[in-house]
Amino acid sequence: MSRWEPNTRERLLDAALDLFGERGYDSVTVAEIAERAGLTKRTFFRHFADKREVLFAGQEIMSRLLSDAIAAAPASATPIEAVAAALTAATQPLGPHRRERARQIRAVVAGHTDLRERELLKLATLRAAMAEALRARGTPPPTASLAAEIGGLAFSTGFIRWVEPDSEREFAPLVLEALDELMAATTTLA
Amino acid sequence: MSRWEPNTRERLLDAALDLFGERGYDSVTVAEIAERAGLTKRTFFRHFADKREVLFAGQEIMSRLLSDAIAAAPASATPIEAVAAALTAATQPLGPHRRERARQIRAVVAGHTDLRERELLKLATLRAAMAEALRARGTPPPTASLAAEIGGLAFSTGFIRWVEPDSEREFAPLVLEALDELMAATTTLA
Repeated sequence: MSRWEPNTRERLLDAALDLFGERGYDSVTVAEIAERAGLTKRTFFRHFADKREVLFAGQEIMSRLLSDAIAAAPASATPIEAVAAALTAATQPLGPHRRERARQIRAVVAGHTDLRERELLKLATLRAAMAEALRARGTPPPTASLAAEIGGLAFSTGFIRWVEPDSEREFAPLVLEALDELMAATTTLA
Repeated sequence: MSRWEPNTRERLLDAALDLFGERGYDSVTVAEIAERAGLTKRTFFRHFADKREVLFAGQEIMSRLLSDAIAAAPASATPIEAVAAALTAATQPLGPHRRERARQIRAVVAGHTDLRERELLKLATLRAAMAEALRARGTPPPTASLAAEIGGLAFSTGFIRWVEPDSEREFAPLVLEALDELMAATTTLA
């Protein structure tokens, strides 16, 4: 990302979501997104590999927030405490403006198989980032994978509740609540 | 699938894997796969939506095996016992011939982002099938989701061990072993 264009990605995302909402994802071109944002196509491609990627902006940042929070958790933290800290760090910055965007993104993604596939890949990347950060702090591999899966499931569950049409609660507490439910469920598996 | 062509899908898959191995996935056409299998392009498209789908043949059958086994598990079975029965039912039919194919498929998929995305979608479909079958037998939603995630992770972990170059063990026991490891790990999360 260019340091001298701090809001470029945001502007491109806003422009893209407006256009997708008006005319549908398929018929909108990168050139039109750039134009609506008052930028060039070249600038678009400096920030995103393709039209699809606009919808998944911020996932690299989220991966890093997750990893960093797990690395920074105190040595005494259990794997799930470290995951809870990671989920909090990654979701707390996402306020009401982001929720409205998330709803729009969700509506576009739901209608396209290839976008759902890309979303699954991004979610798998988030889980992998958590698992790797846990292993790096000495969590044994099966526990690290399991904690990361549970974290991913809490994230998805919390996300769905966050973007529900009548939802007014914030993202982070919804995710932590889902994490608590899943941890309670671990005792009912066998 | 046409009843009068029982081996058509198998033949198409074998032909496709041979060609992908010889010339790379990208440069092989559907027409060439059909020709190598001694069939027409039209027949190919009666069985698969596109070239990608050949690599994921059998996933619908696997989804059904998982669902059916969970539905058929005794009422007294715990969620993880039902998942173990499902994983056994879905992986036991996959013998040594399938392993060699699975290795070839894995090699092709690993090199292509869009194939990895499709694989993740298929895995998500398998998890969703297990979760739905568990809810249908009265397992509460968080437990059902969690058991299905753990089942999916056991499946993936067992699969990776099954296709390792020097692996000689069978698929089903490797998956059940991974499931045991994950269940042991549930006690070390918090």
